[in-house]
Amino acid sequence: MSFNTFGHLFRVTTWGESHGPALGATVDGCPPGVQIEAEALQHWLDRRKPGQNKFTTQRQEPDQVKILSGVFEGRATGTPIQLMIENTDQRSKDYGDIAKSFRPGHADITYHQKYGLRDYRGGGRSSARETAARVAAGGVARAALTDLAPGLRITGYMVQIGPHRIDRSRFDAEQIEQNPFWCPDPVAATQWAAYLDDLRLNHNSVGAVIEVTASGVPAGLGAPIYGKLDSDLASAMMSINAVKAVEIGEGMAAAELTGVENADEIRMGANGPEYLSNHAGGILGGISTGQDVVVRFAVKPTSSILTPRRTVNQDGAEIELITKGRHDPCVGIRAVPVAEAMMACVLLDHLLLDRGQTGGIRGKIG
Amino acid sequence: MSFNTFGHLFRVTTWGESHGPALGATVDGCPPGVQIEAEALQHWLDRRKPGQNKFTTQRQEPDQVKILSGVFEGRATGTPIQLMIENTDQRSKDYGDIAKSFRPGHADITYHQKYGLRDYRGGGRSSARETAARVAAGGVARAALTDLAPGLRITGYMVQIGPHRIDRSRFDAEQIEQNPFWCPDPVAATQWAAYLDDLRLNHNSVGAVIEVTASGVPAGLGAPIYGKLDSDLASAMMSINAVKAVEIGEGMAAAELTGVENADEIRMGANGPEYLSNHAGGILGGISTGQDVVVRFAVKPTSSILTPRRTVNQDGAEIELITKGRHDPCVGIRAVPVAEAMMACVLLDHLLLDRGQTGGIRGKIG
Amino acid sequence: MSFNTFGHLFRVTTWGESHGPALGATVDGCPPGVQIEAEALQHWLDRRKPGQNKFTTQRQEPDQVKILSGVFEGRATGTPIQLMIENTDQRSKDYGDIAKSFRPGHADITYHQKYGLRDYRGGGRSSARETAARVAAGGVARAALTDLAPGLRITGYMVQIGPHRIDRSRFDAEQIEQNPFWCPDPVAATQWAAYLDDLRLNHNSVGAVIEVTASGVPAGLGAPIYGKLDSDLASAMMSINAVKAVEIGEGMAAAELTGVENADEIRMGANGPEYLSNHAGGILGGISTGQDVVVRFAVKPTSSILTPRRTVNQDGAEIELITKGRHDPCVGIRAVPVAEAMMACVLLDHLLLDRGQTGGIRGKIG
Amino acid sequence: MSFNTFGHLFRVTTWGESHGPALGATVDGCPPGVQIEAEALQHWLDRRKPGQNKFTTQRQEPDQVKILSGVFEGRATGTPIQLMIENTDQRSKDYGDIAKSFRPGHADITYHQKYGLRDYRGGGRSSARETAARVAAGGVARAALTDLAPGLRITGYMVQIGPHRIDRSRFDAEQIEQNPFWCPDPVAATQWAAYLDDLRLNHNSVGAVIEVTASGVPAGLGAPIYGKLDSDLASAMMSINAVKAVEIGEGMAAAELTGVENADEIRMGANGPEYLSNHAGGILGGISTGQDVVVRFAVKPTSSILTPRRTVNQDGAEIELITKGRHDPCVGIRAVPVAEAMMACVLLDHLLLDRGQTGGIRGKIG
Repeated sequence: MSFNTFGHLFRVTTWGESHGPALGATVDGCPPGVQIEAEALQHWLDRRKPGQNKFTTQRQEPDQVKILSGVFEGRATGTPIQLMIENTDQRSKDYGDIAKSFRPGHADITYHQKYGLRDYRGGGRSSARETAARVAAGGVARAALTDLAPGLRITGYMVQIGPHRIDRSRFDAEQIEQNPFWCPDPVAATQWAAYLDDLRLNHNSVGAVIEVTASGVPAGLGAPIYGKLDSDLASAMMSINAVKAVEIGEGMAAAELTGVENADEIRMGANGPEYLSNHAGGILGGISTGQDVVVRFAVKPTSSILTPRRTVNQDGAEIELITKGRHDPCVGIRAVPVAEAMMACVLLDHLLLDRGQTGGIRGKIG
Repeated sequence: MSFNTFGHLFRVTTWGESHGPALGATVDGCPPGVQIEAEALQHWLDRRKPGQNKFTTQRQEPDQVKILSGVFEGRATGTPIQLMIENTDQRSKDYGDIAKSFRPGHADITYHQKYGLRDYRGGGRSSARETAARVAAGGVARAALTDLAPGLRITGYMVQIGPHRIDRSRFDAEQIEQNPFWCPDPVAATQWAAYLDDLRLNHNSVGAVIEVTASGVPAGLGAPIYGKLDSDLASAMMSINAVKAVEIGEGMAAAELTGVENADEIRMGANGPEYLSNHAGGILGGISTGQDVVVRFAVKPTSSILTPRRTVNQDGAEIELITKGRHDPCVGIRAVPVAEAMMACVLLDHLLLDRGQTGGIRGKIG
Repeated sequence: MSFNTFGHLFRVTTWGESHGPALGATVDGCPPGVQIEAEALQHWLDRRKPGQNKFTTQRQEPDQVKILSGVFEGRATGTPIQLMIENTDQRSKDYGDIAKSFRPGHADITYHQKYGLRDYRGGGRSSARETAARVAAGGVARAALTDLAPGLRITGYMVQIGPHRIDRSRFDAEQIEQNPFWCPDPVAATQWAAYLDDLRLNHNSVGAVIEVTASGVPAGLGAPIYGKLDSDLASAMMSINAVKAVEIGEGMAAAELTGVENADEIRMGANGPEYLSNHAGGILGGISTGQDVVVRFAVKPTSSILTPRRTVNQDGAEIELITKGRHDPCVGIRAVPVAEAMMACVLLDHLLLDRGQTGGIRGKIG
Repeated sequence: MSFNTFGHLFRVTTWGESHGPALGATVDGCPPGVQIEAEALQHWLDRRKPGQNKFTTQRQEPDQVKILSGVFEGRATGTPIQLMIENTDQRSKDYGDIAKSFRPGHADITYHQKYGLRDYRGGGRSSARETAARVAAGGVARAALTDLAPGLRITGYMVQIGPHRIDRSRFDAEQIEQNPFWCPDPVAATQWAAYLDDLRLNHNSVGAVIEVTASGVPAGLGAPIYGKLDSDLASAMMSINAVKAVEIGEGMAAAELTGVENADEIRMGANGPEYLSNHAGGILGGISTGQDVVVRFAVKPTSSILTPRRTVNQDGAEIELITKGRHDPCVGIRAVPVAEAMMACVLLDHLLLDRGQTGGIRGKIG
């Protein structure tokens, strides 16, 4: 119900603004006994951290996470885990000129219209800095998943920047952490680097498509009708800044398939039913099948660009605005660890829900 | 939290199986005083009703809605509105052969795995018949919107069946109700009819893309960060049977745009700020801008086809299955009124939420 | 969040008015596989049924429950269970004279003030008839508890009517169903009968105190801080019509105890820790201890009396009103099965919650 | 749904343990524009602060609250307000001896049984220190109420310590802040001081009864059936540490009243209907009447006493335990500001809910 809370039994409430003293996540519902260490959470935050290469914002934030509650002698106690990240590099003066102007493509105007006032510094609450809190919370979820679903692996990567897609035949998971784009195709990564350099010189930005997969997901997760696993994943991914579309499995391409093509046929394998294809993206009727869960989403281009755009200010004057500051030419890049974190949160949440509702009942096959 | 409930303040809980005695919706949170008549709800149900033409299932259901509570002398009292639709044409014998077999592409296998037992008749709870309850509830939402946001209009239509898209230059809203496909392009409608006839003869089915727009939506609706209007719409649409992707505004195409192209520039109009384009689909930072809200989603092909597909049964035997029964060659068609209903529910819910949280504060511009 | 829904994972939404066509409960979250039969639910409804003796309302309602969904071949499928009870003896004409007048002690005036309109017939939604739906839902909860916590027993009884309390030294559980008052003390039951006869002749009514205990409750149920077992029980009992106070264990009397007296000392028994007393009522820090959970609540006197009382009508005129109709001289009597039902719902809900959050982890002692 | 969150639209999630680095409250849903200042919040915290006199724990905590988010230039922005209170006087060594023993009357044993591990230092999460976070959040609620319901006043006070009750004829609201007991009867206050001195010398403690009233509450707040104002107040008060009973209006005494006595008769006053009495405690059918809302609750005696009590430890050994440390002889005293805070949170929450659901519709009378 709450506006800043995500999840059913594993509930994450994020808080904080881009240029306030701190931001963080209040994580409620982590199962007791899970091993939680600040260092492990830090690992995930470091992957999202700004300023690591020329393709992401040059803001320098250590994004050091502190655990203020809910962990005792290295283990979750079952009480709320408060994760705090202090803001250190708040160059708020950069934002004085947008205090009363509305940057096109940003939430400045809608926050003003809704709330009547806003923390304009760096976009305030609507800044992508909020996603640092998600990544920290996702670290908690991953730690719990390690216990509850040991074989589960979550992998995020970019599959498209602007018009340039990866070549799936070159997909190499080991490449993902070898380039600044989480790109599994080393050829595409090189292409993207040149493309983005050019865009930045032209004071422009571009969109992207990210894919996140989870393998080792137990069959049976998801709560029809309105807590379907795919519904919750769609909501989770769409809540990430700048996301404009979410696909499961075939996604939009499902519209072009026939029923004969789309049916994921089933045979019996050594450990139960096996599917001959995965058009469904691992979800049938809102419930996981045991196949890889495959989610894809599109991120719009960074709205903060140095090219002047027409807009209005609070007084109703028409103006032209360029957005100075330290911005990512492609916000999609840093969305990768965020989307992994959201996937972890949703899967853990559904594991707990399923355990609560069914006790982990699993109808036998064979 | 609840598995079968949708919404925050306007909460719809649907119940019922395809071949049980009845199905319906428990609608909680309708503002008091709203005029609710069974006839008005019936109008929307009739649009979704099966058996109306050869392109939808031949099951004959009057889908007659009864109001059991919450309405007194034609007006909502603010208490729960119970809407019941009795099932009449339950040919359950059609389904005896799938009692212990899993139809590929259906939720048979996942319901079995999750719950250990299932009402297999017609897919039970996972049947698209559940969407009749949504349409009834959507009728209540529309009635309330008539009071609370008088200028608001919701329009759903198909924009693609299989590989065949509408030509946007021929878009004519008046055509939408003139053909069995809710198609705004009369040329495409003719093409689709021939295409679907052919598919059916070949015991096949196909996917589709539906678009739903809402005009006259007040600026300021949406509750960041995790109750964003687009998040909730994504969740709502993804919860509809067979949906595999949801797009807002540019959707997946946003990935290919540059920041210069994507910026919806703003100028001052007679009644406040006006946008020169609507790549955003009417939502910025999760909050409505006052522009048309534009949502699109892809529906996979009907999984029930007469072409045999390989699968397994509950005993673990590998079998081939054809799905007899009375099925839509393109389930997308009947998803149009369902998606309109979901749009109505989400918008009303956010109107109430916004009224609760902000009291309808609107920061002035100019 | 929802106004007419109770529970976290086991969620009951009741609907319906006193004189509408039907009322019922939408029960979501019943674990799959639980045996549910209409006859078993009917057993509980029959205990609450009006018109069974001269001490309860003479309205004649069969209170026949129908299961419309969620049960297949006698077992819960894990989908919503719709329970409907049709109203048959709706003498609405009895209520014409209160259409625009506000009966003192009733919700007539507050419903009018809140909603601007109301179904005045028999109190509409605020009628105690709503509790029939709770009892039906409680039957589902009891069925699930039979599976999940086999030794658990819930027993409700009256301990006080007006100034007359039971003598605890005469407490005999077998007496509870032997008199119209659910009274465990046969001497008190006789006394109460005479007292109530006298009150009725004098066109008066009276309050009561009910106690509900649950034995065999596993230790570890309850979700601190705001989903404490006692918090949820307090909320559940206070939501019953006419309830004005809820006590756990010693209740109000705890104020008069010293710490030395109040400490429930612990020793080791054959099966783990045992308590030497139960001042706590089976709950410590919001979590069950394994002792009997003991809840008590006070019900105010029936507000519908034949003695004229001063009030106002919708036009603002001061009037005197007597409440005709068919009313219980002591509404507390029929609250007993309702309170048992609420206890069952809360305990099942917390069993599911605990299973979800902790997986039923239990720290060992000894 | 969440275990550590309270409220529907105004949602407070508290976090933190007695001896962790900090504790606090994540407050979501404060209406935008409300003036929030750390000094104003501090005022309320100072009233609850430990160590202020010999009748409360001697732990020295400045309980300095920091606002980490959600407030910009002194006003709430509508985004989550993070309130943090650092722990400074953590004498954890005091608690080493209870690391593996269970103090009678405390949640030590139930936390162990539920979670399998616990932060034993000072009771960890189950410590009354958690209530500091509630008081801070209550300060936010009060600030919002100042805007939304300007005439609303909340007053808490003690009416009973052990067997000693106030004399209502001596009730003097101005006395409440003049003694360490929030006692409105100066004679009782003197009596209580002597009584408590004596108890402490005898290594004992005692229970208490607190009453909280709210005047100026608009008619129409409360959401039947399961979000009734009294249900939510019961849940709120019962969630406070050591509370064993909650009463509304007449409370338990309602059981002894007749219908003739209990009817709060109504006449027309200058500003609408007026009640001749307030047995109902300002709530009818779960909705506020406009009269004073009157809530009372009993607090059990402090369980931490220096008198040895029999108990067991984690190894299953029977032991005797005295609870050293710095404890309140009557925990009820510090519950007064906590209960006021809970009242403020519940009333604000229902104001927002009512605004959302009904738009503040008020049926006219006269």
